[in-house]
Amino acid sequence: MVQPQIARPTLLIRPEIVRRNIARMVAKAKRNGHLFRPHFKTHQSWEIGRWFRKAGIDRITVSSIEMAEYFAADGWNDILIAFPVNVCEMDRLNQLAKGIQLHLILDHEDALKALQLGMDHPANVWVEVDCGDGRTGIPATNQEDILQLSRSIIETPQLNFGGLITHAGHAYSELRTGNPNQWFNDLVAPLQALRAQFKDQFPDRELCISYGDTPSCSMLNELPGVDEIRPGNFVFFDLMQEYIGSCQVNDVAVAMAVPVVSVRENSAVVHGGGVHFAKDRLEEGLFPLAHAHHFGWVVEATEEGWRPLPQHYLKDLSQEHGEVNYPVHENWPSPQIGDTMLILPVHSCMTADLMMGYRIWSNGTLGDNIPAMKAHFARKED
Amino acid sequence: MVQPQIARPTLLIRPEIVRRNIARMVAKAKRNGHLFRPHFKTHQSWEIGRWFRKAGIDRITVSSIEMAEYFAADGWNDILIAFPVNVCEMDRLNQLAKGIQLHLILDHEDALKALQLGMDHPANVWVEVDCGDGRTGIPATNQEDILQLSRSIIETPQLNFGGLITHAGHAYSELRTGNPNQWFNDLVAPLQALRAQFKDQFPDRELCISYGDTPSCSMLNELPGVDEIRPGNFVFFDLMQEYIGSCQVNDVAVAMAVPVVSVRENSAVVHGGGVHFAKDRLEEGLFPLAHAHHFGWVVEATEEGWRPLPQHYLKDLSQEHGEVNYPVHENWPSPQIGDTMLILPVHSCMTADLMMGYRIWSNGTLGDNIPAMKAHFARKED
Repeated sequence: MVQPQIARPTLLIRPEIVRRNIARMVAKAKRNGHLFRPHFKTHQSWEIGRWFRKAGIDRITVSSIEMAEYFAADGWNDILIAFPVNVCEMDRLNQLAKGIQLHLILDHEDALKALQLGMDHPANVWVEVDCGDGRTGIPATNQEDILQLSRSIIETPQLNFGGLITHAGHAYSELRTGNPNQWFNDLVAPLQALRAQFKDQFPDRELCISYGDTPSCSMLNELPGVDEIRPGNFVFFDLMQEYIGSCQVNDVAVAMAVPVVSVRENSAVVHGGGVHFAKDRLEEGLFPLAHAHHFGWVVEATEEGWRPLPQHYLKDLSQEHGEVNYPVHENWPSPQIGDTMLILPVHSCMTADLMMGYRIWSNGTLGDNIPAMKAHFARKED
Repeated sequence: MVQPQIARPTLLIRPEIVRRNIARMVAKAKRNGHLFRPHFKTHQSWEIGRWFRKAGIDRITVSSIEMAEYFAADGWNDILIAFPVNVCEMDRLNQLAKGIQLHLILDHEDALKALQLGMDHPANVWVEVDCGDGRTGIPATNQEDILQLSRSIIETPQLNFGGLITHAGHAYSELRTGNPNQWFNDLVAPLQALRAQFKDQFPDRELCISYGDTPSCSMLNELPGVDEIRPGNFVFFDLMQEYIGSCQVNDVAVAMAVPVVSVRENSAVVHGGGVHFAKDRLEEGLFPLAHAHHFGWVVEATEEGWRPLPQHYLKDLSQEHGEVNYPVHENWPSPQIGDTMLILPVHSCMTADLMMGYRIWSNGTLGDNIPAMKAHFARKED
């Protein structure tokens, strides 16, 4: 297959793989009877959002007020900001709630008090539950606190109660080993207990439980006990997900194309550094590698996806430089200055955020540029 | 001192500290008889560049063609791109060389061949020497190769030979311990040998040796044997530099101001994640901390600079979330939802790149926003 040639760091996107990733998750959600509210923080792009819309998606998740505004401006009208509500931004929240079905999350009565004082337009407010991640949310075992905060929302006239929401961030570290189904059953048990108590206390209401992360939603065939899923990274996947076991290397939908600018016997420097890839790294030796940590794999493009070049990896990043290691081997001739190297990112969300856009690469042909959110807002602020 | 209040993640800049950092390095360069070509990759801002211009600077360093174009558009006409020349971008290089004194660097004859074929306008070409960093450049001990490549440039009619250039990236890890003066003398010895050989071979030419990195240029009172210095980070400094010993905490000129969105007994979550700070981290326990790694210190602003709050640090980052740890202690009341927290970054270059601009904070008063390069180009491409 013809390899792409570029002049400067470029984030290539393969639409066929993106659409396949979307279709697979849509089908799984449908099969399991789940509402599907994909997280758009990974791609941050109107264009890719429209590919989701064509696949039947009408509700989305974002991670900031800015991102909610960006997607609302492209016609999305049911948006969950899956980040503890920022009570310093009441004007922007009101503006959003005026125009769309806005969903906010919180884990503390102080945040609710601020919304009670500040929100003039109805918003849907969810209680965040911590199912073991430890970052945000009321611990799932504090069932009384969770139900009390839910009750306070229900009793607030200008707010709607959304339900309970949780993000199992610890899935990233815990699902790679052990039994995923058992792990999920243990995680969801306190949520089921909450559901039973909620039914007792509010017999005329249905409780919605929203759950989401790419490893769980990819690795588990079923997710019994939750009503809505919110994975995001699956749209692109990356080496972190391949490492966990959420995907195969051929499911990765984006690759950095970078020019080679300096070569030695078994290493090269590419124009592609921390300001392009971000500095997320994988700490352990992985197939096809064996070393302390890396920032990406060097690959060749194939019809099906990507072929990792054995022992070719991004070993270090500075601001603009990427240092690539490779073996001296007759099967893989050393790169030359001016060559294009393809590198799969460790964490596609962070790489996409930095690159602020994509270049379509489909069936061996370079296509249009697709801008993403940060490019959009930088223009707007002019 | 009144602490700043913000609604969303904001990179505050203190002009008094920036100007002091600039003045100090200008004075040192003057005292040592060095040409001073500061690296602008740290701030990436027209406005801050103009503060340098007022301090007498007329030559600069950048890390990409894009950045050279950006600063050329603000009237800088002597620009060194301190990154191995990207031979895929000959049109842009010619365009730059047509308008300004453009300086390029290379470490391989293939790159020179591409310039010989492609450059229609005179550019100054430097040979990059590796003084132990191991990333790019011809190893300083390969003196024949360095002199041969220099000769090839000198003999190319449409190119000017700039000199030898080196970046001691290993200063970051090696200067913190040991004897800085001895370290520098060992490093510069092969460069001095090159100077002697160059004088023999080209008796009618002066050899210029350009050297640069913030730790060396900050920690050493003198840098004998080099002609030009190119530090960049010193304009802002950061916790990495404080750790190495290049600066005091009061020399750090930028701080992230972030809103608190979730609180627990001895931890909080702020809106400030990997897409704001970048994921550079300090690996070791530092004053005032004692733990495995951190992504920033929580501080209070003072007249002189910053007071770190003991044991208050950024312990983890996800895309938009920052997790802050602090002790339960009567002297430091726990933060509340909606509070503004000030956090000094580990690596100010990466944080500034992500934030794409600054907000002036001077004498306790919030001032104008200052856009930086990425915001500029995102607008231009509209």
